[in-house]
Amino acid sequence: MKFLNALVYKNKQLNLMELPKPKPKEDEVLIKVLMAGICNTDLEITQGYLGFSGIIGHEFVGEVVHDPLREFKGKRVVGSINISCNKCEYCQRGMYKHCKNLNQLGIRGSDGVFAEFTTLPRKNIHVVPECIANQEAVFVEPMAAGVEIAEQIHIKPSEEVVVQGDGKLGLVTSMVLWTMGVNVRLIGKHQEKMDIVEELGIPTCFPKEVESKYEIIIECTGSSDGLNIAQSLVKPTGTIVAKTTIKDMDSFDLSKLVVNEISIIGSRCGPFEPTLRFIENNKFPFEKMIDGIYSLEEWEKAFKSAKHKETLKVLFQIS
Amino acid sequence: MKFLNALVYKNKQLNLMELPKPKPKEDEVLIKVLMAGICNTDLEITQGYLGFSGIIGHEFVGEVVHDPLREFKGKRVVGSINISCNKCEYCQRGMYKHCKNLNQLGIRGSDGVFAEFTTLPRKNIHVVPECIANQEAVFVEPMAAGVEIAEQIHIKPSEEVVVQGDGKLGLVTSMVLWTMGVNVRLIGKHQEKMDIVEELGIPTCFPKEVESKYEIIIECTGSSDGLNIAQSLVKPTGTIVAKTTIKDMDSFDLSKLVVNEISIIGSRCGPFEPTLRFIENNKFPFEKMIDGIYSLEEWEKAFKSAKHKETLKVLFQIS
Repeated sequence: MKFLNALVYKNKQLNLMELPKPKPKEDEVLIKVLMAGICNTDLEITQGYLGFSGIIGHEFVGEVVHDPLREFKGKRVVGSINISCNKCEYCQRGMYKHCKNLNQLGIRGSDGVFAEFTTLPRKNIHVVPECIANQEAVFVEPMAAGVEIAEQIHIKPSEEVVVQGDGKLGLVTSMVLWTMGVNVRLIGKHQEKMDIVEELGIPTCFPKEVESKYEIIIECTGSSDGLNIAQSLVKPTGTIVAKTTIKDMDSFDLSKLVVNEISIIGSRCGPFEPTLRFIENNKFPFEKMIDGIYSLEEWEKAFKSAKHKETLKVLFQIS
Repeated sequence: MKFLNALVYKNKQLNLMELPKPKPKEDEVLIKVLMAGICNTDLEITQGYLGFSGIIGHEFVGEVVHDPLREFKGKRVVGSINISCNKCEYCQRGMYKHCKNLNQLGIRGSDGVFAEFTTLPRKNIHVVPECIANQEAVFVEPMAAGVEIAEQIHIKPSEEVVVQGDGKLGLVTSMVLWTMGVNVRLIGKHQEKMDIVEELGIPTCFPKEVESKYEIIIECTGSSDGLNIAQSLVKPTGTIVAKTTIKDMDSFDLSKLVVNEISIIGSRCGPFEPTLRFIENNKFPFEKMIDGIYSLEEWEKAFKSAKHKETLKVLFQIS
């Protein structure tokens, strides 16, 4: 039996370990991981978030080395992180992402992708078009979270939209909305990060420069006062899309929400197929978002870099 | 100049005072108030809410005694409480309720209806059909707040809806949704209040009896933990309609909202015309919600009764 290198979080410690090559279940493919990205969720997991124990990592591009139905064999793929039971009431309605028994790649109940090999159900797999490089394909997962917004709400051409927060999610979300023709503006605190989307033509500004209110606010700050800031920016009857997964937010004035008839909608992972299409049909400056590419053996350096506030994306080159 | 009795909140005190008869502005009608209802907002105003000073009260039915265009003269009417400037950006878009310079009858910048006479802009006035008694007409305003929900969100016939809270708003909201054919259930804590809607056929239960989750939760508890309870009852991708206007709610787990992709929508006053039609076409047990009818001179007794937790609606018989 072959052994593989894997970055494992266990007993409150992150370590590179030798583990046996994973065995795909009947409906799964075995994937050789080519490249993987460190996400904020990975950083949170190493702080104990969700109590996960196992191989971490969920943003990846890889090559299928075993597929029971051969369809994906040899194909370069990305994969949705949500592993559903396909049996519960929500799965039966097609709400797989909200499965009552949900596992998530490298996040909950399932080993992840910071390893030489990983497995995923066949139905989670999406083939990457040739014109999309590995360094672009690792952005499919975070970018799909931006695409999800348009799956959830109708954004009218006449509406003014603000993406709040210039971290990775804020940047890719503003890019993807811009690509859809949305009248979007990014509000951030870091000129050098905002420069990345400004080059595409997307208007940006600092919080203090904001003078008007907007129909739709996409809250991507990751901060405990993000929702309050969003509420101060949104027009009456407007919509706040909440992307920030924090347990304890700052106290929130519910009466303002009621009086102004504001909507808040929580928004999570998105669909991969349209996201691949967007990346195929547009030129996104992903390369400017990459702050470093490391081998798995350099994981300590990689995580140290990823934790810096100024850092955007840190990648692992695995195979 | 004639003087009238008016219940005035001023310098942190409520008092019955003699005031000059109000003079309607050019676009306003003068209304002789027949009957008025005490709302929770009135109780809050006497606790200093919104810093209002003036004649309180906003739920009423009255008779128009002066109309510059004569159209409403002699007519029995109810009136929308939102007095808009008709000039600001929101008014120009028809969002009068969200006017930037909004006044509200007996709540903000405008004397209210616990008085012999009141004034309102002509465009706020709605004629009450003859078959609707005064004791029913005073419920138009709170009931319109229930109708507003159907103006804001699409409730599918196949969806299960919960109204949370068996106060006045919860009761009339469950009634109006029931009338629309919605599969609604009321969750409350007071059997005798729930009995009122049970007699219409509306299923009710106590919180501890709830076993499943629902697509839509209408949050009418008025309590600081109402939104948390609603979040525990709503299905993934479901909707919470927030009716509770409290400034400081209990800490709220935003990460659950994001992960489960829940929507929260604030909801306030509603449209009067469809509400009048609902009351005209249906028999609602308003009489069971009335705990007492007082004269303005008995205002202390009336307010004392209204403050009781068990009390539903307290009315003033004014003319």
